[in-house]
Amino acid sequence: MPDKTPEDILADASAWWDTSIIDVQPGKIAIRGYAIQDLIGHVGFADMIWLMLRGELPTRGQAALLEAALVPGVDHGPHAPSIAISRMAVTCGLPVNGAMASAINVLDDVHGGAGQQCMALYRAIDAEAGPGGDLVAAATAIIRRQREAGDKIVPGFGHRFHPVDPRVVPLFALVDQAVAAGHASGHWARIGHAVEEALKTVTGRAIPMNIDGITAVIFCELGFEPELGRGLFILSRSVGILAHAWEQKQRGRRIMGPMPKDIPYRYSGPPLRPLPDRADNA
Amino acid sequence: MPDKTPEDILADASAWWDTSIIDVQPGKIAIRGYAIQDLIGHVGFADMIWLMLRGELPTRGQAALLEAALVPGVDHGPHAPSIAISRMAVTCGLPVNGAMASAINVLDDVHGGAGQQCMALYRAIDAEAGPGGDLVAAATAIIRRQREAGDKIVPGFGHRFHPVDPRVVPLFALVDQAVAAGHASGHWARIGHAVEEALKTVTGRAIPMNIDGITAVIFCELGFEPELGRGLFILSRSVGILAHAWEQKQRGRRIMGPMPKDIPYRYSGPPLRPLPDRADNA
Amino acid sequence: MPDKTPEDILADASAWWDTSIIDVQPGKIAIRGYAIQDLIGHVGFADMIWLMLRGELPTRGQAALLEAALVPGVDHGPHAPSIAISRMAVTCGLPVNGAMASAINVLDDVHGGAGQQCMALYRAIDAEAGPGGDLVAAATAIIRRQREAGDKIVPGFGHRFHPVDPRVVPLFALVDQAVAAGHASGHWARIGHAVEEALKTVTGRAIPMNIDGITAVIFCELGFEPELGRGLFILSRSVGILAHAWEQKQRGRRIMGPMPKDIPYRYSGPPLRPLPDRADNA
Amino acid sequence: MPDKTPEDILADASAWWDTSIIDVQPGKIAIRGYAIQDLIGHVGFADMIWLMLRGELPTRGQAALLEAALVPGVDHGPHAPSIAISRMAVTCGLPVNGAMASAINVLDDVHGGAGQQCMALYRAIDAEAGPGGDLVAAATAIIRRQREAGDKIVPGFGHRFHPVDPRVVPLFALVDQAVAAGHASGHWARIGHAVEEALKTVTGRAIPMNIDGITAVIFCELGFEPELGRGLFILSRSVGILAHAWEQKQRGRRIMGPMPKDIPYRYSGPPLRPLPDRADNA
Repeated sequence: MPDKTPEDILADASAWWDTSIIDVQPGKIAIRGYAIQDLIGHVGFADMIWLMLRGELPTRGQAALLEAALVPGVDHGPHAPSIAISRMAVTCGLPVNGAMASAINVLDDVHGGAGQQCMALYRAIDAEAGPGGDLVAAATAIIRRQREAGDKIVPGFGHRFHPVDPRVVPLFALVDQAVAAGHASGHWARIGHAVEEALKTVTGRAIPMNIDGITAVIFCELGFEPELGRGLFILSRSVGILAHAWEQKQRGRRIMGPMPKDIPYRYSGPPLRPLPDRADNA
Repeated sequence: MPDKTPEDILADASAWWDTSIIDVQPGKIAIRGYAIQDLIGHVGFADMIWLMLRGELPTRGQAALLEAALVPGVDHGPHAPSIAISRMAVTCGLPVNGAMASAINVLDDVHGGAGQQCMALYRAIDAEAGPGGDLVAAATAIIRRQREAGDKIVPGFGHRFHPVDPRVVPLFALVDQAVAAGHASGHWARIGHAVEEALKTVTGRAIPMNIDGITAVIFCELGFEPELGRGLFILSRSVGILAHAWEQKQRGRRIMGPMPKDIPYRYSGPPLRPLPDRADNA
Repeated sequence: MPDKTPEDILADASAWWDTSIIDVQPGKIAIRGYAIQDLIGHVGFADMIWLMLRGELPTRGQAALLEAALVPGVDHGPHAPSIAISRMAVTCGLPVNGAMASAINVLDDVHGGAGQQCMALYRAIDAEAGPGGDLVAAATAIIRRQREAGDKIVPGFGHRFHPVDPRVVPLFALVDQAVAAGHASGHWARIGHAVEEALKTVTGRAIPMNIDGITAVIFCELGFEPELGRGLFILSRSVGILAHAWEQKQRGRRIMGPMPKDIPYRYSGPPLRPLPDRADNA
Repeated sequence: MPDKTPEDILADASAWWDTSIIDVQPGKIAIRGYAIQDLIGHVGFADMIWLMLRGELPTRGQAALLEAALVPGVDHGPHAPSIAISRMAVTCGLPVNGAMASAINVLDDVHGGAGQQCMALYRAIDAEAGPGGDLVAAATAIIRRQREAGDKIVPGFGHRFHPVDPRVVPLFALVDQAVAAGHASGHWARIGHAVEEALKTVTGRAIPMNIDGITAVIFCELGFEPELGRGLFILSRSVGILAHAWEQKQRGRRIMGPMPKDIPYRYSGPPLRPLPDRADNA
């Protein structure tokens, strides 16, 4: 870079770390253009989450719906890997930041991605149907194509544990209220119902919407991108990950594995054998 | 364990993963005894954080103060390692869960621990003063002892960047309001002020309270343990970590290191040299 | 599960954690059937890596080639995000395990995946050519198809930094020696050369093999699956991540961001603005 | 910084990322002063680990002893949290880098720190005894003081699982050989034996050295700092973490928690209760 001046290089370095989120100067902190002292005490935590992720403040109705959707995801018990890892990590000596890191990391495609995948499905149905199109027909077509391609899992619908997910009805009621109050369009709620109908047609039985399906409806109604659906779930589940880390820490146990040592794991490899003679000498 | 029956072993295994936080059964999710369908739409996200961490719901006044304290910690710009790591991680191909994990992990003693340490300091002052004791005298004594032991950093006071931290005044006003409304005792706010006075006496100059000092006041007023002070900060900063990951992802850059490659790092090791002859043959 | 006996449940629990890698009993540790006391002092670290990942011990020639391939990946300087994150993490207070975790995490598709992707490319060429087929023709066809689909990056070839990668020639010489000694077939080395030829044909210029391309040749010659190519690179780079964490720790710096604070980042968001009036009251 | 020129700022930025480990320039990679092309094929992986961490190449005898000490730590079965987390992480959808990150993170004070703590104990005994001093007396004094302070755990001695640790005898034999060959002083081996004698005196029973105790002897004999003892253990265990991740990945299971869902966890919190009436309205 022979013709770059030091001034050019410095400018490039500043641009390299460009952000539109926060402006920090000595004595000044402004988030998306709002002075931090104006925000403190005047906006809620859900408002801040929205402002940080979207660039503008939500209406109060949008914030209330977002906040309600953050409540039920906080925990699903120690059988969930994210919770179990947090508790195990603490017994290995980690502080809460470390336990949270190891646990949040596993909220990936399979354990934390169903909401994001469901949002993508809803968008695909929206695109397939086109403006004013038949949502049930679009959902049916997409689900049929997926099944023909060998993929039988429809993210956001059915649950391996709960026959009926107790989180769905109250959340859907909030969506309906938000639609009635003009805070949401209801388009994505209709798509959610369309998937339920399509599943009944395709499979011959009722496969009800689960927590991922209804939060996907909410996050789509609120205009979030699918990948942020995963991010919002992580913000929610982080609360449970922290709470379980803290409960475990107070119990003082050391090096807690997945099962008590009374329950042996099964070894399925070769029986004891001598080292081979490795004749070649490289 | 020859005399344990299979039933005993199973009961021990269940007890090994005991929790008082959540009861999950098919069709039932209860958090701290509250059915999830009762919580959804009726409690806020800050209420849930409190319920998960403390076991009971907060009063509305407590929840409002907690919520206000979660707002300002969300971000401090890409110069903060937690934010920088999140952005770099995304350019390496990580999804948001992975970026958040690598970033949250570094909110350890130095980068994320000042609030927790400040809460411990406030508690030490409280214990040193005793009931009704002189808080300034206690603060002065403890700070003097720390300095004599060679430790000049008082967590929660002073800032390497902001001459006056714009987040402190509005948060302190909320504490005063909460005290006036009976939601907080004001004891820990007095301890915070006592540290400021003590610092002036000991160092001869004003070292104002920073964001860690005022959130430590709030979390102490609300009855949180110091380690949860770190946990609450992580919940707050996670929002910024996610927002920066998302902004970076939309820019599409690949493998972003700490500085543009125009700025070389300094190498201070030995100059180029030949491999030595290693005579011994073990 | 009403008809499962406690014995059944315990057996299922053991099976749930089944492994063919290690058998641990009180006083006994056997890895892939070999008693640990037989392994200690009789096999090298590269042998152990192979045994753990493949189930059998390598020949000495295979082990020597694997070991050589683990040497050059250990480090590529602090501009690499994996190394930078390790150093930053230490300045936040993390011990070496935490620094290594945050850093290793980012060795994902973009920063740590080129070797794996290159192995997948070699396999695709092998499949395209078929037994005894024309490797250059197959490589050319695949690269052309990729470019037509808009993907111009050929993993393992070219380098944004090194005009000629000094690691390639000596590693290729070791492959040639291994082939001459009968430790490797040479088939994957021919595929690597075929890609170089194909790239010259397709692009009109020489795009030489880089470190990912030659280690992909080696790991394919040794029979590793592509995903283990990434795993082996991580084992190698972990050494550099640890070394840089340790060097940084000895320097005692606190909270090191990506650039010194003399270099400001650029803020590209909205200018300072007042909070909006949010009329709706949900 | 009004009087800093752009040149000054750039120089400071380069210095901020100073390293003595690696010099990377276009076409040149030198580690600790050795050209990478000189190292490839001429030094082993254990040599590289030593060079990266210590700055110089080891003798062949030192490298052989280090390599032997890296072999037994690779794995201790899926009951170890580090291994269990790796396997669980894979079933959540993580690639091997993510699984390794979440798992390596927990190799902290309790699960991964015994070797480091044992090295610190050996050094404390060395300092207590002074040159030519009575090592058993020093060990006894230190262990007595620890027990009087309430700490009964002596890191590196005793095992909650193995009555006799099968890894200790063969590793100690290698230390004795290295001492006989002049590759090690034997001073730290004597300290290790002194701890065993002191424990017998203090507790009245034999508490044999375990794997952490013998690797601590080796790493002290080789001149490593205690914190690097943890780092070396991590490099070793990373192999097992990767191998188990890979084995689990091939089995295709989804979202594997700590126990099969047939084994319920125990819930010990309050029974189901209605939401309280929260009268205060902040």
